[in-house]
Amino acid sequence: MKVLIVHAHPEPQSFTTALRDLAVETLQGQGHQVQVSDLYAMNWNPVASAADFTERQDPDYLVYALEQRLGAKNGGLAADIQSELDKLLWADTLILNFPLYWFSVPAILKGWIDRVLVSGVCYGGKRFYDQGGLAGKRVLVSLTLGGREHMFGEGAIHGPLEDMLRPLLRGTLAYVGMDVLPPFVAWHVPYISHAAREEFLVAYQQRLSGLEGDQPLAFPRLQQFDERLYPLPQA
Amino acid sequence: MKVLIVHAHPEPQSFTTALRDLAVETLQGQGHQVQVSDLYAMNWNPVASAADFTERQDPDYLVYALEQRLGAKNGGLAADIQSELDKLLWADTLILNFPLYWFSVPAILKGWIDRVLVSGVCYGGKRFYDQGGLAGKRVLVSLTLGGREHMFGEGAIHGPLEDMLRPLLRGTLAYVGMDVLPPFVAWHVPYISHAAREEFLVAYQQRLSGLEGDQPLAFPRLQQFDERLYPLPQA
Repeated sequence: MKVLIVHAHPEPQSFTTALRDLAVETLQGQGHQVQVSDLYAMNWNPVASAADFTERQDPDYLVYALEQRLGAKNGGLAADIQSELDKLLWADTLILNFPLYWFSVPAILKGWIDRVLVSGVCYGGKRFYDQGGLAGKRVLVSLTLGGREHMFGEGAIHGPLEDMLRPLLRGTLAYVGMDVLPPFVAWHVPYISHAAREEFLVAYQQRLSGLEGDQPLAFPRLQQFDERLYPLPQA
Repeated sequence: MKVLIVHAHPEPQSFTTALRDLAVETLQGQGHQVQVSDLYAMNWNPVASAADFTERQDPDYLVYALEQRLGAKNGGLAADIQSELDKLLWADTLILNFPLYWFSVPAILKGWIDRVLVSGVCYGGKRFYDQGGLAGKRVLVSLTLGGREHMFGEGAIHGPLEDMLRPLLRGTLAYVGMDVLPPFVAWHVPYISHAAREEFLVAYQQRLSGLEGDQPLAFPRLQQFDERLYPLPQA
């Protein structure tokens, strides 16, 4: 496998960082190639703006996705975006490794998504969900959070974690065509013992070792919808 | 009403900006007080980091929420955070005004959430959902998106928009105790006629004029759960 790990945590000694390091070690130990984008260490700029394009189709009015399409075609994307896009296109497996902030990714990682998942390459027109531009790649979301496991699920106070993650898992990763694996979740991390953290590390190592055999989650397929994207009657 | 509008769009001439301007004009015309945080114009820093605190409880290991609690108590939050927090606490009504990026807020707005919704003030311990620190305030999410309305809803290709917005509406805004009003949505904005945009402006003006009478959405209440936050049997 060629694995890109995108890591976003402000504390280099964090448990989330230990998960990243374990992933590098485990996957390289299995003979896979691994690249890491450590967004905090890179001082990654998360703000999508006009400065993301070296030339503009319309210099007077910014339509971000339109300029992405042109920039991707003409080599006019900002260097930091092109560099990340190259890593993403190189990889057959993506791991997003982060602490859950507001039931979502930290802003620095949201800005990687906003800027790197370029229109015209990763999606565009009818190229989304199973027809997305990154079809054939796999993605694992590895996250840490403060809440306890019993606070998530049907009837639990926050509802199912997968429902909170819907814009990420379905609206972003499945949208660009990737096979989205069930997330790896380390619960209640700030409050647990060293031994409990060790257990998560063991579980993560096992998960990583079996990654190639993991079954992805199910998401919409375009063949279930008509040309205008209305649902077709089910067979 | 005292209204804070947090606006996040990279194009000052955008339709999303027109919605913001209409909100300012309409609400001020009704005699309400309005402040605007234009995140792009402010060059807002969305990245939560150790630099957000002028003094640290633990200078060697960053636990972000812990430092937020100390910083809020001791006046040790970075000036840009404190300034936004002051506006938020001044307001009784919050409007988040943005284009939907990846079924979520743009990174610059996610970073306003990450940095300004400070632990110890907006939430903390058992102070969340109806017991959240911002209880009594109301919030309206006003968003523009590219998709058509028929692409959202039960059975539609993206499912219900409210499900995609769950980490924002429930996991963030309801979590800090705010009364979350049904979102205002302008569909298919990049592709529609001037006349269709005008119709959205008229609809938004009507919506804003009746804001005080709007009924909030329903979310969990802590009394439905026991001390350990397991659900109680329903009466």
